[in-house]
Amino acid sequence: MTYEAAMRLALEQAVKGVRGANPLVGAVLLDSSGGLLGVGHHEGAGTPHAEAAALAGLPPERIRGGTMVVSLEPCGHVGRMPACSQSLIEAGIATVVYAVADPAPLARGGAAQLRAAGVTVVEGVSAGPAAELNRRWFAAVQAQRPYTSVHIAQTLDGRIAAADGSSQWISSPESLVANHALRARVDAMLVGTGTVIADDPRLTARRPDGSLAAKQPRRVVLGLREVPEQAALRGDGNWVQIRSHDPEAAGRILKAEGVDHLMVEGGAKVTAAFLRADLVDELIVSIAPTVLGAGTSSIGDLGIETLGAARHFAWDPAAAVRRDGDDLTLSLIPQPLPTTFMKEN
Amino acid sequence: MTYEAAMRLALEQAVKGVRGANPLVGAVLLDSSGGLLGVGHHEGAGTPHAEAAALAGLPPERIRGGTMVVSLEPCGHVGRMPACSQSLIEAGIATVVYAVADPAPLARGGAAQLRAAGVTVVEGVSAGPAAELNRRWFAAVQAQRPYTSVHIAQTLDGRIAAADGSSQWISSPESLVANHALRARVDAMLVGTGTVIADDPRLTARRPDGSLAAKQPRRVVLGLREVPEQAALRGDGNWVQIRSHDPEAAGRILKAEGVDHLMVEGGAKVTAAFLRADLVDELIVSIAPTVLGAGTSSIGDLGIETLGAARHFAWDPAAAVRRDGDDLTLSLIPQPLPTTFMKEN
Ligand SMILES: NC(=O)c1ccc[n+]([C@@H]2O[C@H](COP(=O)([O-])OP(=O)(O)OC[C@H]3O[C@@H](n4cnc5c(N)ncnc54)[C@H](OP(=O)(O)O)[C@@H]3O)[C@@H](O)[C@H]2O)c1
Ligand SMILES: NC(=O)c1ccc[n+]([C@@H]2O[C@H](COP(=O)([O-])OP(=O)(O)OC[C@H]3O[C@@H](n4cnc5c(N)ncnc54)[C@H](OP(=O)(O)O)[C@@H]3O)[C@@H](O)[C@H]2O)c1
Repeated sequence: MTYEAAMRLALEQAVKGVRGANPLVGAVLLDSSGGLLGVGHHEGAGTPHAEAAALAGLPPERIRGGTMVVSLEPCGHVGRMPACSQSLIEAGIATVVYAVADPAPLARGGAAQLRAAGVTVVEGVSAGPAAELNRRWFAAVQAQRPYTSVHIAQTLDGRIAAADGSSQWISSPESLVANHALRARVDAMLVGTGTVIADDPRLTARRPDGSLAAKQPRRVVLGLREVPEQAALRGDGNWVQIRSHDPEAAGRILKAEGVDHLMVEGGAKVTAAFLRADLVDELIVSIAPTVLGAGTSSIGDLGIETLGAARHFAWDPAAAVRRDGDDLTLSLIPQPLPTTFMKEN
Repeated sequence: MTYEAAMRLALEQAVKGVRGANPLVGAVLLDSSGGLLGVGHHEGAGTPHAEAAALAGLPPERIRGGTMVVSLEPCGHVGRMPACSQSLIEAGIATVVYAVADPAPLARGGAAQLRAAGVTVVEGVSAGPAAELNRRWFAAVQAQRPYTSVHIAQTLDGRIAAADGSSQWISSPESLVANHALRARVDAMLVGTGTVIADDPRLTARRPDGSLAAKQPRRVVLGLREVPEQAALRGDGNWVQIRSHDPEAAGRILKAEGVDHLMVEGGAKVTAAFLRADLVDELIVSIAPTVLGAGTSSIGDLGIETLGAARHFAWDPAAAVRRDGDDLTLSLIPQPLPTTFMKEN
């Protein structure tokens, strides 16, 4: 198998993962004569890296002298998982082929460690598609802000609340379960003061039986108004209010406090603020097969006057369209702003 | 194969067709010992009926003495297609099993003709699911109004036009091609005066190269304001204005003039008027992966104040979700109004 063919396979593996604090990564292990030995992908933060998944369960003697083809530079640091560079060296891998370098300050250095240990390192195979797959994640790392998912639960006609403000629950029970599974993966949940005052959400991650998931996201409120004394999200105190209208500042503050994956869950104004600042890395829209004909539209004013200035999104190859009970869940990635809307430099 | 199993198969065939002036119908042909001989479905108005499709290409001696299992009573009239009852009698079919009677005044009588010719007729097998599949079509026939499809082209956030009124084109080229194919199947296209004044649509059915399709829908404008002298839809004169705000009256008038399948293509107020009157048989929503944050919402006021009163839809088993280029096309069927919203009797 050529490196290019193996990398295509690695990218097909990569999209089986979930987006978040870590990038999507896929790996393909070839034996010393180029035959396929194993494939693997990264399932998301806290799970084995793609290289480890590709190696798993194989007898050491078959691995030795082999080639690891991976869509991202193997990491060079020990985090929740052992450093991939060390594992590959110890396993006797002769050649490592990767698509793009790891931009994360902590993770980089893997390629240098491999070279120092005498492993042949080939960089840049299928770099274009590999970079595109994690384009928003790279941008978030480089800007030192959290990877930011925005979640919207809306009707077919784009309403997130009825005329009287009622919004619980627009989504099907199955959508709510999927949403809480995502909450249990993120580091923080953010809403605007408007949503706190209108809905009094708990913003916890709950299991289908209503009990709290083991890992709870930090709860964050953006806005100037006071969070009511009795607000449910005050709960156990694992919350913070950022008294600002600036989503960029919020991201900076949260990243410094260890939030690598942020989920914004409305309302319309806060979602719009994140979109305007181009801080949305992934847009997840749950569409219920219902119609209201009135109420709050899902996305507030973006300053867009005409159709030609609409914000464009691409379907996420790692998720795209899913049925959650009666609802349809769409995953989209913002496309670069048209150049006419970019700042002069 | 039991009649029930054969009818399940017939219903699976039925959903391969397209909705419109004719119902979805599927047929399964069994030989005299109950073995599967053929399957067929109706592709839509102007194409062979399901029974004919199931018989097609089979040698006459294999058909004779067989059983036709069909989800709708075989028709008893000669229309664009020969009467199914006669074809079945001539083919020597011994038994006809059907799910539900044909409510169309012109088509009914097939079962009686079959019985008169000595064919054994079994009615009511899987009547529930068969009636549900065409529930809205039956209702339209019984009310003597056109089967009515509503088509909406919107952004993710439910906008059908930007703040400045621009709306051409929200949809991908592939969506437009699919939309024009549907226009070429319907008997009439209806829009409100608002859309005529805002967009000046042609409302013709065009091929991908821009040329006119062979069959053109009648063009209908609903509303009181004058249609501008220079309006594009005046075109060759195959249009009419119904000076009313009453969608029920419009349906009655159009049905009397031979419109069996009507497509409503907006705008927001007219779509809402059809929904309020419960005259929407099928809702087709093309969602472009774009966001506007402002502009006209796809569905105007329905008098719904609170989430509990939202209108509910079911995913159409015959269509549900389709990708048209960058767009997602959803097909939905209105669910019965909750009883609390029904008139007292
Ligand atoms: N279905 C769903 O997925 C969902 C999710 C959430 C909310 N909702 C619904 O959405 C509605 C609330 O929407 P919303 O738009 O009013 O609330 P919001 O976006 O949650 O909060 C808006 C408030 O946030 C503050 N804020 C912070 N940053 C801002 C910025 N950059 N620009 C403007 N304001 C900023 C402002 O309040 P200060 O004056 O306090 O600064 C503003 O009034 C409710 O009806 C709720 O039910 C639905
Ligand atoms: N993306 C799409 O799929 C799509 C399709 C169509 C339109 N659009 C956009 O939709 C916008 C137009 O929407 P719209 O709601 O203003 O236009 P509309 O629904 O086409 O027309 C509204 C007008 O129709 C008349 N009307 C007829 N029956 C009515 C009833 N039962 N209730 C109320 N009015 C009735 C009234 O005008 P009279 O005073 O003359 O009676 C009313 O002002 C435009 O911006 C257009 O671009 C988008």
